[in-house]
Amino acid sequence: MPGAGRAAGVRRLRPQPSEEPPTQENLLLAAAYVSDAQYNRNVPFETSPRAIRLYYFYNHWTMQVAIYFFICVDLSLALFEEPALFPLPFLATSLAEVLCLTAFFGRLVHFAKVTPQMVFWKDTKNICIMVTIVLTLIDLIIYGSLEAVNVHSVRWSRVLRPVFLINFPESRQIRRTFRSIRNTLPDILYVFLLFMFSVLIFSLMALKLFGDRGLKTVEGLPYFTNILDIVFELYVLVTTANSPDVMMPAYNFNWWYCLYFITYTIINTYIFMSVFLAVVYNNYRKHLKNEIRKLAYLKRHKMIEAFNILKVKVGTEFVVMEAQWRRLAKVVAPHISGPHLELLLRISDEGQKGHVDKVNFLRLADLLNIQVVTINIRRHPLEDWMPRVYRSSASLLVQRMVQHRIFVWVYDVIILINAIFIALDERNPFISYAEWLFLSLYIIEILLKLYTYEPRAYFDRRQFWNWFDTLIIIAALVATVANTTIQSARKYNSQQILDIVLILRILRLLRIIVSIQRFRVIVTTLINIGPTILTFGGLVLVDVLSLLLLAGGFALVTHQAAKLYFIGFHIVVVILIVNIFIAFILEAFFVAYSLEKSEVETAIEKKIQELGVGIQEEEMQDRKLVDNVDAKDSGFSGDDGDNKRKDLKGLYFRIASKKYRTVDALLQQMFESEIAPEEEGPSLDEILNFSPGDLYPKNPNFENSA
Amino acid sequence: MPGAGRAAGVRRLRPQPSEEPPTQENLLLAAAYVSDAQYNRNVPFETSPRAIRLYYFYNHWTMQVAIYFFICVDLSLALFEEPALFPLPFLATSLAEVLCLTAFFGRLVHFAKVTPQMVFWKDTKNICIMVTIVLTLIDLIIYGSLEAVNVHSVRWSRVLRPVFLINFPESRQIRRTFRSIRNTLPDILYVFLLFMFSVLIFSLMALKLFGDRGLKTVEGLPYFTNILDIVFELYVLVTTANSPDVMMPAYNFNWWYCLYFITYTIINTYIFMSVFLAVVYNNYRKHLKNEIRKLAYLKRHKMIEAFNILKVKVGTEFVVMEAQWRRLAKVVAPHISGPHLELLLRISDEGQKGHVDKVNFLRLADLLNIQVVTINIRRHPLEDWMPRVYRSSASLLVQRMVQHRIFVWVYDVIILINAIFIALDERNPFISYAEWLFLSLYIIEILLKLYTYEPRAYFDRRQFWNWFDTLIIIAALVATVANTTIQSARKYNSQQILDIVLILRILRLLRIIVSIQRFRVIVTTLINIGPTILTFGGLVLVDVLSLLLLAGGFALVTHQAAKLYFIGFHIVVVILIVNIFIAFILEAFFVAYSLEKSEVETAIEKKIQELGVGIQEEEMQDRKLVDNVDAKDSGFSGDDGDNKRKDLKGLYFRIASKKYRTVDALLQQMFESEIAPEEEGPSLDEILNFSPGDLYPKNPNFENSA
Repeated sequence: MPGAGRAAGVRRLRPQPSEEPPTQENLLLAAAYVSDAQYNRNVPFETSPRAIRLYYFYNHWTMQVAIYFFICVDLSLALFEEPALFPLPFLATSLAEVLCLTAFFGRLVHFAKVTPQMVFWKDTKNICIMVTIVLTLIDLIIYGSLEAVNVHSVRWSRVLRPVFLINFPESRQIRRTFRSIRNTLPDILYVFLLFMFSVLIFSLMALKLFGDRGLKTVEGLPYFTNILDIVFELYVLVTTANSPDVMMPAYNFNWWYCLYFITYTIINTYIFMSVFLAVVYNNYRKHLKNEIRKLAYLKRHKMIEAFNILKVKVGTEFVVMEAQWRRLAKVVAPHISGPHLELLLRISDEGQKGHVDKVNFLRLADLLNIQVVTINIRRHPLEDWMPRVYRSSASLLVQRMVQHRIFVWVYDVIILINAIFIALDERNPFISYAEWLFLSLYIIEILLKLYTYEPRAYFDRRQFWNWFDTLIIIAALVATVANTTIQSARKYNSQQILDIVLILRILRLLRIIVSIQRFRVIVTTLINIGPTILTFGGLVLVDVLSLLLLAGGFALVTHQAAKLYFIGFHIVVVILIVNIFIAFILEAFFVAYSLEKSEVETAIEKKIQELGVGIQEEEMQDRKLVDNVDAKDSGFSGDDGDNKRKDLKGLYFRIASKKYRTVDALLQQMFESEIAPEEEGPSLDEILNFSPGDLYPKNPNFENSA
Repeated sequence: MPGAGRAAGVRRLRPQPSEEPPTQENLLLAAAYVSDAQYNRNVPFETSPRAIRLYYFYNHWTMQVAIYFFICVDLSLALFEEPALFPLPFLATSLAEVLCLTAFFGRLVHFAKVTPQMVFWKDTKNICIMVTIVLTLIDLIIYGSLEAVNVHSVRWSRVLRPVFLINFPESRQIRRTFRSIRNTLPDILYVFLLFMFSVLIFSLMALKLFGDRGLKTVEGLPYFTNILDIVFELYVLVTTANSPDVMMPAYNFNWWYCLYFITYTIINTYIFMSVFLAVVYNNYRKHLKNEIRKLAYLKRHKMIEAFNILKVKVGTEFVVMEAQWRRLAKVVAPHISGPHLELLLRISDEGQKGHVDKVNFLRLADLLNIQVVTINIRRHPLEDWMPRVYRSSASLLVQRMVQHRIFVWVYDVIILINAIFIALDERNPFISYAEWLFLSLYIIEILLKLYTYEPRAYFDRRQFWNWFDTLIIIAALVATVANTTIQSARKYNSQQILDIVLILRILRLLRIIVSIQRFRVIVTTLINIGPTILTFGGLVLVDVLSLLLLAGGFALVTHQAAKLYFIGFHIVVVILIVNIFIAFILEAFFVAYSLEKSEVETAIEKKIQELGVGIQEEEMQDRKLVDNVDAKDSGFSGDDGDNKRKDLKGLYFRIASKKYRTVDALLQQMFESEIAPEEEGPSLDEILNFSPGDLYPKNPNFENSA
């Protein structure tokens, strides 16, 4: 701990507050550290000024969007290559692929420039990408040459494409899943062996009990006479895919044989599948905690580095001067509003001493991560344009009506009636016309709301359901008009457009969920874990595709191979991925159930309340903001404690609802509360070389508890 | 805390050690408290001398066996009643039923005599049993009268029979499951509504997308035209029971429609089923912890009551004199061996001061619960009868061979070869003879082991696999001989006996699991949770039967009713019971993974080591006990610290392996470590009236986090 050592050595000197500002390079370096801590980037970077500028460029959002674009292009190539949905010539797809590979390589070179050599080459992700690029190029060349002489071969490197998606630093969730799978394998293996042993024992029993009876299956084939067939059939029975067909011959022969199948199902379907889930979930939780702990230590480490760059000595302790703190925050979060920044400074410099101490400085990344909604209450535009009309008693009555609860209920009833109409026969012209009525009712609702509420507040980034409503209604309107136009012009229903209209019409019904408070936790948790669910869906697809391509590539179409394929698919997809998926959902819901405010959030909320600029979430939800003071982004003098109320006039802050936080953030917060503020954690080398066992020794794994 | 108050009031008197022994009544009362604490009985009892004697009788094992016998008879009546497997006249079954009801009523009256009135009538279990007895009698009378005039009706009270199994105080696991179900219902309900809403939305989409296409199902019926049919089909799709049949018409019409079914399966099969599991598991864990906490407090409470009865003042503190402690322990655990009791006293009276202090006294119930194996190393009987032969060099060589690891491996190989032979065709006479060879090899193995190891040690209560081996082999021997006899006498194979022989032959293969260390944790955990798994199996059966009987009773055989039955069955069995079952297995495995020695066990082990009478578990497992000192159950003088080694000569103690502990015991131990030794916990009334929320306020439930 060099900082602590230095502090101890110079304690007796009592130097004057030093005010020499850090150089721009040092400020950028510190900002890079803080930004890394804020976004949980867990790779160290080079600290030379050139590398730092490159690092800023590397982390710029345009670069990230670009790389995701190329990954999407690369993955979607499968749609245009033989066997294709929309065939394109080989030249076109291969050109696109080379372009993507170049982009990936460029990104990798860029990464190598900003990362210390040692760290770069120790990272398997980078090696993986390089190897995949080389292999893909080799495959492209071979395939192209063979194609040129009209020999058709297999583009085997297509299987490798998901590697790019998985190995880029931004896909942490996917990699965590893969690591979970890898870490779980040894434990799973023993349970799997035991499971297979159990299947074998039951197969032997089946052979002896049913094999000599001369029974026939539904198709008239010999029933349970070959041990390998039995093993396969019983394995499939675990998935219940061939139930009850597989048991019928035995059951018909003797009623009591159903006991055999009941025992089999209880042991192998219910117990063993639960044990698989237990092993996977136990490992998932263990490793998740390790990773979160590692991230938390890294974050602390980087914040301390930033502090050491900016610190000056005031009295007996090292601090960061307010001016430097402001410069730093402006670099890290350039889009933050003046009042918001001032709010954060008030929290960090509680006593308004003009500097921020170490403990408060270390919280900066967390403070920046908390979404504080700056509610800038503005006059409705209509009020500016025609104040007389907008403030007339009729207009005010309309506004009050729209704000009333009954307005919501009326539209809930309309949606329900709409649902019944959809279920009824559509060829009835009355019902067909009714659909126009519903559409106009929904449009009127949106217009009324826009008349009542400030449009920019209504279409806030976080107002998911307002966006959902509006987009669905506009799309339905466009599609319905398009369909009617086509129909009247060409006397013909476009099936595609009609399908879209129907689906949009039904999706509208989803709105009713929001009205019921009880559903919100579930729905919000589901929406929060949505991206990860898509990730898992992607993984399953990748696996299915890989296995299909493998099967196709090795030209196995035989019967036995199909069986092996089924078993392999079941092991990979059901036993591993589905269980990890379930483990993930379980963990997400447990975290959601135990939601608590973090220490940092509480500090911000306290300060917001102190300053008297808070606003209740309920007020926001009921949209009953009547105080229409215009916003003044006044830039803040901020030194005077008395005029703070004046400075913040017209601005209201609110912590963005907890429900928008991700599972990762919640987990990290759970662990961070365990680290004392003074603790600096292990050294960077130690953190980066942590094995799970080092960090999490208390939960013995399978072998230790044996 | 009356005890603490009295202690403070008389502190200055410094009385002489009082030695007046408690009356026999008081001792019995204290022993009843300790016994309750030991077996976690959580109902208070009357403390009058007569009630205590009745209470001892109530808890006697013969009474418990008797009541279980009557429950079994009552439940098995279903086999003999119309529609019966083995029909018996109504008079016989109704007589048996009346007998059972009388027994249940007697047990209840007995319970009422030993329980305080208030507690008895507040307990819903007792009310349940009474109501069920009355209802069953009414039904019997009505059915009997109608039968007498030849009118056939339905014995609807048969559905109520499981109530007896569930409501008797000994079936705690089953009741906990029911309570879990009840407590989970509100949370489950909201998820279920959301789930049904999702199914409805998808059904509407299916109706619109596929209903107008004129598609036909595999059976040629209209495909997806009726909204109720669609809801049912999609509900069934969640169980994957009708997959892929239900999607084929749509898939054949247009390849893209598979997207609809993929989305449906991901959302409703994977996500919603996981959310159900998450809600059930979260509740299960929450309520399990509450109950365990309540039990731990009750235990502490009862131990304090016992202490207050027996305590005398020595110096400034209250203690229990050694003589009283011994009398108490002998009443609570009459079958405990003298040396074992002496060991426990040495642990409780660490300084050998002649009395046990409060903290150590409170541990008594735990100490009695820990299975200390008293290894009474005896000479092999053969050595007594013919010492010359048994100690000859040839005999010693045989013994060393049997003790060697290779002996185990050789038999593992034999088992594997046996497995291959079983899989081969049995009509080959060579293979049929080989079976005799294997059988004799196994018999030789058991005889050799009995020759080498002391038979009473070999057939110890805890040597599960030795018992397993021997019983399987003897049964196989008997069955094979019986089969051969029948075959040679009547030229006819008894199919039942042959089936039994085959199954026994295959069960023998299970032995190989024990040889593989890695499998032991899994297998032991599975064996530990075996009884509970049977409970769940019973519950599912009860539900299936109840639903079947209900369906039969109301004569629903219509098509719509069958569908409703399927949905009801799925909700009850899959969503509730299977999820609780999975939650239970998950929890059991998590507890098994985090096995640690309890504080009490550590104390006992330390004392065993101190006394130098410990024995390593590994030595036991390898059965390499060579020190053949004869046992002397010497009764112990025990006051002298120096001759302890002599007193315990020839006796070895060992803590029974942790793997024999139940999940409940582990959980309770986890919570007890949180209660400070001085803490007396809440009052009895408070404990008995605890609602889950009071005891477990930190984990907010669904509504609170909304």
